[in-house]
Amino acid sequence: MTPSDAVDPRVIRTRHDVPTVALRLLIDEGWEAVTPARVAAEAGYSRATVYAHWPERTDLIRDAFAQYGGMPHHTPSGDTDLDLRGELESFCRAMVEHRLDRALATLAERAQTNPEIAPVRDRFVADGERPMRQTLPALARGPEAEAALLMLCGMVTHSVLMHGRAPTGEVLDAAVAIVVSGLGSR
Amino acid sequence: MTPSDAVDPRVIRTRHDVPTVALRLLIDEGWEAVTPARVAAEAGYSRATVYAHWPERTDLIRDAFAQYGGMPHHTPSGDTDLDLRGELESFCRAMVEHRLDRALATLAERAQTNPEIAPVRDRFVADGERPMRQTLPALARGPEAEAALLMLCGMVTHSVLMHGRAPTGEVLDAAVAIVVSGLGSR
Repeated sequence: MTPSDAVDPRVIRTRHDVPTVALRLLIDEGWEAVTPARVAAEAGYSRATVYAHWPERTDLIRDAFAQYGGMPHHTPSGDTDLDLRGELESFCRAMVEHRLDRALATLAERAQTNPEIAPVRDRFVADGERPMRQTLPALARGPEAEAALLMLCGMVTHSVLMHGRAPTGEVLDAAVAIVVSGLGSR
Repeated sequence: MTPSDAVDPRVIRTRHDVPTVALRLLIDEGWEAVTPARVAAEAGYSRATVYAHWPERTDLIRDAFAQYGGMPHHTPSGDTDLDLRGELESFCRAMVEHRLDRALATLAERAQTNPEIAPVRDRFVADGERPMRQTLPALARGPEAEAALLMLCGMVTHSVLMHGRAPTGEVLDAAVAIVVSGLGSR
């Protein structure tokens, strides 16, 4: 970013407005709706402006997903059980309240067939998993930590994408208890 | 099915060939490719025949996914650890060898926006989870069994759909050990 970009409020506004509209279209209408022309029209900018900032559609899609960057995570307390449980709760809430279910389903589907989308997915997923990856080393390392991460995140992903609903609080409690006691007894 | 349907080998062949082609198109080219016209052309049948057997596109999609019904599962041994591990292995193998990754990603994505597809997904997922649901009661019931199921299936779903690869054997081993010891120590 050049200094002039950094201070021009129009650029800042464009860089905020356009990806916000792109994400809304993606969630409400699906992938095909996120074209530069449609996003420009909905956001109230010219197509030329959208193309100037996002020459490739993939750039626009990546910045749309980056809107989730400000999504609330659980605030770590230092208590591993509580932190894992809190992070699962945030993940479930984002699925429902911020339609992360739709965003992830679309991203997973497109990444299968479009090699340009796989890095967008990988980065998005890495950002989402970071808090849990920071908590788990208190309990385990190596393949055990990886298994715990995949199981805890996976139970939410699988439940939402494959069953159409987030796990209940009771099931989330049971999962954290199983993982913590399973790692502790080894 | 009427007795005449049951014995007419042409009907049996059609009911096999058309969904097989539909699944191949779904995996290779995606959802949009699975139209009655395209499937008829690829399978070497008339469009009228396809419409006669599958009046709705959803019917054709459901029968395409039903092709996975014959997918090999692990043969239960009665040893819970081995059976959970074997079932995870079968799940991972289907993801890679039978492109279940693409099928699941597409199903998850479409079920989000098309209410007719949600029951197709639900039935497909229930069929896939059945062997693990039959093994888990040896270890736990209620929310603990549900948490274990979602974590074990979810680690594969999450890894494949969100990381683009199946978990390693070492990570699968660690997951089964965590769940079995976590449930046992409670």
